[in-house]
Amino acid sequence: MGCGHQGYGHKILTGRRDVFHTNRIYKGISSLRKRSESVYATFGVGHSSTSISAALGMSVASRLKDDKNRQHIAVIGDGAMTAGMAFEALNHGGVENSNLLVVLNDNCMSIDPNVGALKEYLTDITTSPTYNKVKDEIWKALGVISKFGPNAQAIAQKIENAMKSAVLRQSNLFESLRFRYFGPIDGHDVNHLTKVLEDLKNIPGPKILHCLTVKGKGFKLAEQDQTKWHAPGLFDKITGEIFKPQNNTPQPPKYQDVFGHTMVELAEKNSKIVGVTPAMPSGCSLNIMMKAMPDRAFDVGIAEQHAVTFSAGMATQGLIPFCNIYSSFMQRAYDQVVHDVALQKLNVVFCLDRGGLAGADGPTHHGAFDIAYMRCIPNMIVSAPMNEEELRNLMYTAQHDNLGPFCIRYPRGNGVLTEWRTPFKAIPVGTGRKLRGGEQVAILTFGHPGNFAVAACDELAKENIYPAHYDLRFVKPLDQMLLHEVFANFKKIITVEDGCLQGGMGSAVAEFMIDNGYAAEIVRLGIPDQFIEHGEQSELYAECHLDTQSIMKTVRQLIAA
Amino acid sequence: MGCGHQGYGHKILTGRRDVFHTNRIYKGISSLRKRSESVYATFGVGHSSTSISAALGMSVASRLKDDKNRQHIAVIGDGAMTAGMAFEALNHGGVENSNLLVVLNDNCMSIDPNVGALKEYLTDITTSPTYNKVKDEIWKALGVISKFGPNAQAIAQKIENAMKSAVLRQSNLFESLRFRYFGPIDGHDVNHLTKVLEDLKNIPGPKILHCLTVKGKGFKLAEQDQTKWHAPGLFDKITGEIFKPQNNTPQPPKYQDVFGHTMVELAEKNSKIVGVTPAMPSGCSLNIMMKAMPDRAFDVGIAEQHAVTFSAGMATQGLIPFCNIYSSFMQRAYDQVVHDVALQKLNVVFCLDRGGLAGADGPTHHGAFDIAYMRCIPNMIVSAPMNEEELRNLMYTAQHDNLGPFCIRYPRGNGVLTEWRTPFKAIPVGTGRKLRGGEQVAILTFGHPGNFAVAACDELAKENIYPAHYDLRFVKPLDQMLLHEVFANFKKIITVEDGCLQGGMGSAVAEFMIDNGYAAEIVRLGIPDQFIEHGEQSELYAECHLDTQSIMKTVRQLIAA
Repeated sequence: MGCGHQGYGHKILTGRRDVFHTNRIYKGISSLRKRSESVYATFGVGHSSTSISAALGMSVASRLKDDKNRQHIAVIGDGAMTAGMAFEALNHGGVENSNLLVVLNDNCMSIDPNVGALKEYLTDITTSPTYNKVKDEIWKALGVISKFGPNAQAIAQKIENAMKSAVLRQSNLFESLRFRYFGPIDGHDVNHLTKVLEDLKNIPGPKILHCLTVKGKGFKLAEQDQTKWHAPGLFDKITGEIFKPQNNTPQPPKYQDVFGHTMVELAEKNSKIVGVTPAMPSGCSLNIMMKAMPDRAFDVGIAEQHAVTFSAGMATQGLIPFCNIYSSFMQRAYDQVVHDVALQKLNVVFCLDRGGLAGADGPTHHGAFDIAYMRCIPNMIVSAPMNEEELRNLMYTAQHDNLGPFCIRYPRGNGVLTEWRTPFKAIPVGTGRKLRGGEQVAILTFGHPGNFAVAACDELAKENIYPAHYDLRFVKPLDQMLLHEVFANFKKIITVEDGCLQGGMGSAVAEFMIDNGYAAEIVRLGIPDQFIEHGEQSELYAECHLDTQSIMKTVRQLIAA
Repeated sequence: MGCGHQGYGHKILTGRRDVFHTNRIYKGISSLRKRSESVYATFGVGHSSTSISAALGMSVASRLKDDKNRQHIAVIGDGAMTAGMAFEALNHGGVENSNLLVVLNDNCMSIDPNVGALKEYLTDITTSPTYNKVKDEIWKALGVISKFGPNAQAIAQKIENAMKSAVLRQSNLFESLRFRYFGPIDGHDVNHLTKVLEDLKNIPGPKILHCLTVKGKGFKLAEQDQTKWHAPGLFDKITGEIFKPQNNTPQPPKYQDVFGHTMVELAEKNSKIVGVTPAMPSGCSLNIMMKAMPDRAFDVGIAEQHAVTFSAGMATQGLIPFCNIYSSFMQRAYDQVVHDVALQKLNVVFCLDRGGLAGADGPTHHGAFDIAYMRCIPNMIVSAPMNEEELRNLMYTAQHDNLGPFCIRYPRGNGVLTEWRTPFKAIPVGTGRKLRGGEQVAILTFGHPGNFAVAACDELAKENIYPAHYDLRFVKPLDQMLLHEVFANFKKIITVEDGCLQGGMGSAVAEFMIDNGYAAEIVRLGIPDQFIEHGEQSELYAECHLDTQSIMKTVRQLIAA
């Protein structure tokens, strides 16, 4: 099986060259590996570090079927190797006598440069200091024993040769885990690599082949600035010019950059604040804080579970960690959120970037489930800003003491305000906003889609239709007073959220209604119960009936009913 | 900081000796570590493997506060060390220059004997084969070079001494990750251990102390049968007699044993079935299958993430894995369930043991959130049996091809049938059962609490109150036909589930109601929005208003209203 983030070449080589121009485009091929796309896509991927587990499962299946000739290959990056599940798979794989080859594609990079002790270790292997160190020790010993005779140097040479393989083999981390280790070899030397892979076919059991590669190899600009060129969007392959929409007027910033800059502003005034990211400093813009105050911002590697409990540990000492994890990646640390933070009521602020539809990244990256999976956790505050100012104010609010665990979820992409560096204002926890009074229909929104409701109300006014609009802002705790106002005054309600319909904000509103004995017609707009594919965000909002047009249509239908 | 499963001694030594007899008892002290109980309980625990992350967070906080003298100690078992998050923490800790000591309590056990390559490695260290191997190589080399002169043996001795420290140091897995390794030492030699710990105070940076211990040390019976004595319940400390309730009539079996025996029955007929458990063979009774068909049942170590994706890998090859993970432990593998199984519609059967209230194990072990966190995942079938026969039939149903991901959640403890080995019968997916017709009020139940509703209906009949009772059996997909019947005939409905009230079964019923334009008064009974403490299950059911009395009371109130 192959890998995820390294899958483009694999796609082109396995029958998808002709459709490759539709990559990441609505109804085109996926940017990531997907089983339904090709028989060569043996396992779908999106989040890192799954390949060894999956391939081990396949190899065990072959063993159970007594198919001894089948080869199973997992490709994994050195960044992905820092995730706990890769280690779990090695620990199991080392004692399963199945036919598994792990190819470690070591380019020293995640999206950002790889971090951690493992990376240092892999560099160590590459430059062989272990062997060198042992050799030095021998020579030092021989200095002492040179008195033993004229043959000391020759003896040393012999011993050195005899020792080399034993020492190198034994000192290897992967060999410790019972994988036979081969390499490191040049991963770009295709002829040699092919030969090595042929040879490895004949060696049964678990083994690892360490390949050294250069991220962006073959495109000089990408080799030189690997983070920038991880996902640059469309560019001119000759000049390297990255195509950006031309705009002479100021544009709203990305939510992630509002997060990044606001972190620094807040941390400058509040010495308790620290930042944590699992390997996404450029993806979530914590790199802004890492540059401004390197001692207080931590990239812990692809390690969401650790990121959360590490934050919890700091919180026990009175610090206020802002732990930024993409909404879908937070699925990796769910247990740690429940036990290590929420159960202990610790002040950890979870900033869930990529909440909602993640656009071209597709099903594995949409943050569809966070409202449902966070809302059921006791002690958890769950909020979503409708724009940049709200994001800043929620972050400002969350850094106050003794609030306990506090989620702020916001989407991929740009906000709506060009003047976004607004003064901070605390928001009472659990309060929403009435944005517009109205009649017949109340629209309740949560987070960014509130902007679509604003546009819908503006348009509907031209038709003399005047729905009310409330921005809930918190789905937990709910704004009881605001909801009593809504249900006392409206019998037709629309809920709009960029999250799943099962257990999300609309369900919270329905729970409030029945728990308080109200009755109303409620139409719930949200991400339907299926995995949504990739495309422009606007295309996906429309497909999920979350866009302005869909809200307008729903209001009209409710009024006509 | 200390540890979780090893915390009893710690509790007795830190001020809780006098209340220790209330351990695990309703409103008594917790069986696990809990911050609110003592200043010495620096971090609450329940699930394994969190200690290094939390202590690293604390040590980094001390560094930020410039408190150089503070010592931070994480204690972790060798079983816990197989979990990915421990590795994630080591990878990060190895490059943080903070004052952290990890004490590895190596007793070769989880609840069951520890498994995996790491365990083998730790045994290797203990018996030093690396060093022995290197020594052998030297002697072999010297055999060749003995012709060099009469001093060869003396030379070898010198070289050996010089090499020993270098080789041992370099060949250590933990040193690979930049932790200084000390040990192994006898963890039961308290005087020596104290001295070593004093010495280690003066060594800055990340370090690991490998202690060898014997699980159950000091109580001979426990030393001899460590799995049985992990949690034997009350026993006579002299004779070792384990107190069991005396019953001369046949008792219903534990749900977990029904699972275990049924696995073997099904697997004997269906060669595609395999079993997977992350380190809980005796806890979930997969040990029955591991004994009967060792090739087809896998204990993968404390590694929930890997367990799920390993199962997914096997499913791609046409196998049907039954992956048994406690409901609360499944929180560790949420992302893998979403992406590696559900998104790919793979036939993996998740058997969630300990769904609902887990009794004396308390807040970290209650399976409170699974209905909510599974119900929002597309393609997922979510079911719960009301009794042993239903469990068997759901397992029988789930092993059919092409159903996709299938959850079966059931509680800790005993079922209700003494004659439980019933013939298998397939259940159409998404169908519930009408157990009793009635008037005025309909009770909808999900899973085991259905039995409390049966008892409630029997009692209420004596008062001439006749509520209807429906067992939903599936919360996803919902039985649309059954729910149309309910809402067409009843305006007063009670939902009963041993899961959280946010987003659970009651919410699913509310969603159905509003999506289909019905109106009814609904009272939702379930686990309230707080972490429930420990106690007898019956005590906790009553506290959550899920017991027979509470259901009766709610019916009466609804009728009176």
